[in-house]
Amino acid sequence: MRNIALIIEYDGSLYSGWQRQENAVSVQEVMEASIFKVTKEKVLLEASGRTDAKVHALGQVACFHTQSNIPTEKLPLAINSHLPAGIAVQKAWEASQNFHPRYHAKKKTYWYRIVNSPIPSPLQRMYACHERRYLDIGRMREQADHLIGEYDFTSFCNSGSEVENKVRRIYALQIWEEVMQESVISKTQEKMVKDADGMDYPRRIIHIEITGSGFLYNMVRIIVGTLMEIGKGKAYDIPEILKAKDRRRAGPTAQAQGLFLKAVSYEEGEG
Amino acid sequence: MRNIALIIEYDGSLYSGWQRQENAVSVQEVMEASIFKVTKEKVLLEASGRTDAKVHALGQVACFHTQSNIPTEKLPLAINSHLPAGIAVQKAWEASQNFHPRYHAKKKTYWYRIVNSPIPSPLQRMYACHERRYLDIGRMREQADHLIGEYDFTSFCNSGSEVENKVRRIYALQIWEEVMQESVISKTQEKMVKDADGMDYPRRIIHIEITGSGFLYNMVRIIVGTLMEIGKGKAYDIPEILKAKDRRRAGPTAQAQGLFLKAVSYEEGEG
Repeated sequence: MRNIALIIEYDGSLYSGWQRQENAVSVQEVMEASIFKVTKEKVLLEASGRTDAKVHALGQVACFHTQSNIPTEKLPLAINSHLPAGIAVQKAWEASQNFHPRYHAKKKTYWYRIVNSPIPSPLQRMYACHERRYLDIGRMREQADHLIGEYDFTSFCNSGSEVENKVRRIYALQIWEEVMQESVISKTQEKMVKDADGMDYPRRIIHIEITGSGFLYNMVRIIVGTLMEIGKGKAYDIPEILKAKDRRRAGPTAQAQGLFLKAVSYEEGEG
Repeated sequence: MRNIALIIEYDGSLYSGWQRQENAVSVQEVMEASIFKVTKEKVLLEASGRTDAKVHALGQVACFHTQSNIPTEKLPLAINSHLPAGIAVQKAWEASQNFHPRYHAKKKTYWYRIVNSPIPSPLQRMYACHERRYLDIGRMREQADHLIGEYDFTSFCNSGSEVENKVRRIYALQIWEEVMQESVISKTQEKMVKDADGMDYPRRIIHIEITGSGFLYNMVRIIVGTLMEIGKGKAYDIPEILKAKDRRRAGPTAQAQGLFLKAVSYEEGEG
């Protein structure tokens, strides 16, 4: 029996999440069906963790055991030939027998995208949340720094989690902005007007990337939702929220479609 | 009668193109229906040019005449409130009476995205074409430089164009690469394998941006398709292709979904 590990990219807008469930199409179910077509085996494909409906993955890691003798390097194309365009195996390798993608994960990196603009972006509608009010990323960074380190993240966990130990370590949290392509129009002949609510700021995408030892249920989305409130000028204080261990003290859960599971690392230390 | 100009962003994967047509839903038709709901007028919305099915726009410019007295600055939100999420008016302004978005356009900028990777990217499937063979962007840039200037672009025009004069000016053509987010995996414990066909190069998005005085039917996509053949090492010579004035000498027409109409400019000179 080989233990095959896969790196999988998927578009979460098409699926009800990673986890197999009744009455909805999950990534796990579609992946297992495609592996069956290749190996003729009903495998259990275990991932580094669940992703919710609409949440995307650039680097989900998942494993299955197989008796098939298909060469490992042929598996990505073989499995992909049975997958819809919204899911693709990017790499495959033979892992050690006891390797488990969830238990052995040392670090995970999530990426979140916010279109900050008076008007939403049709091209980003499935891959970012939209915030019409201006976000001050200087304020967001200042408060985000208080999340780096090891803390009890009870205030940043929605119910639905059965985990008892809510201590996690955040290794890095970066926030940066990307000014969006602006249309070039006659600069002198035509008089531009402001948007309906009088706001006038450069349209941009705000990126938030968080690396941690692991994440509680909705933890990244609650961190992002809280930082967005801070960016709007609301008086949230991260050290106080952490200390309170009370979900009601943090901000709202940010929308699912802006979230990407970017990478999972199985090594201690750097990387 | 005011002449209202709009900047419109749309996701081309949802529509049969800009131009109104029978038996298919076009951006023009959806826009005109939304304007009707706001102004109660059946307007003709004229654009800077057509875009084909699956082609996107970040900055399409379109105009309509109206007797409605809704303030110009309220029009984006008013029209957007009747539009599906795949189309949004980004800005509106009152143009001079004789302003025409097609006749008065001085420059257009198109942007093209290529996922260059052995495996396609599910998250880019509607917003880039996929090329599995490695593209040498050094070679592409070298040949692309021969397109800058004023030439007869007959070789880069598909039939379907009724335009007689095929002389156009290319002001700028830039090619750059963006290495895609790679998943971090155990560097020592697990042995990575190459992809099925033995290729091993960094997964990346190649961007091509072209600004010109105007473009013939499928001209950008034929330029991109030819540059992609050059990137694969094929012996296409741009000066010879231009000189031949023969469509068969250029490369294939690149796929529609990688193309974005980025901006239209109505001024001479810079910008």
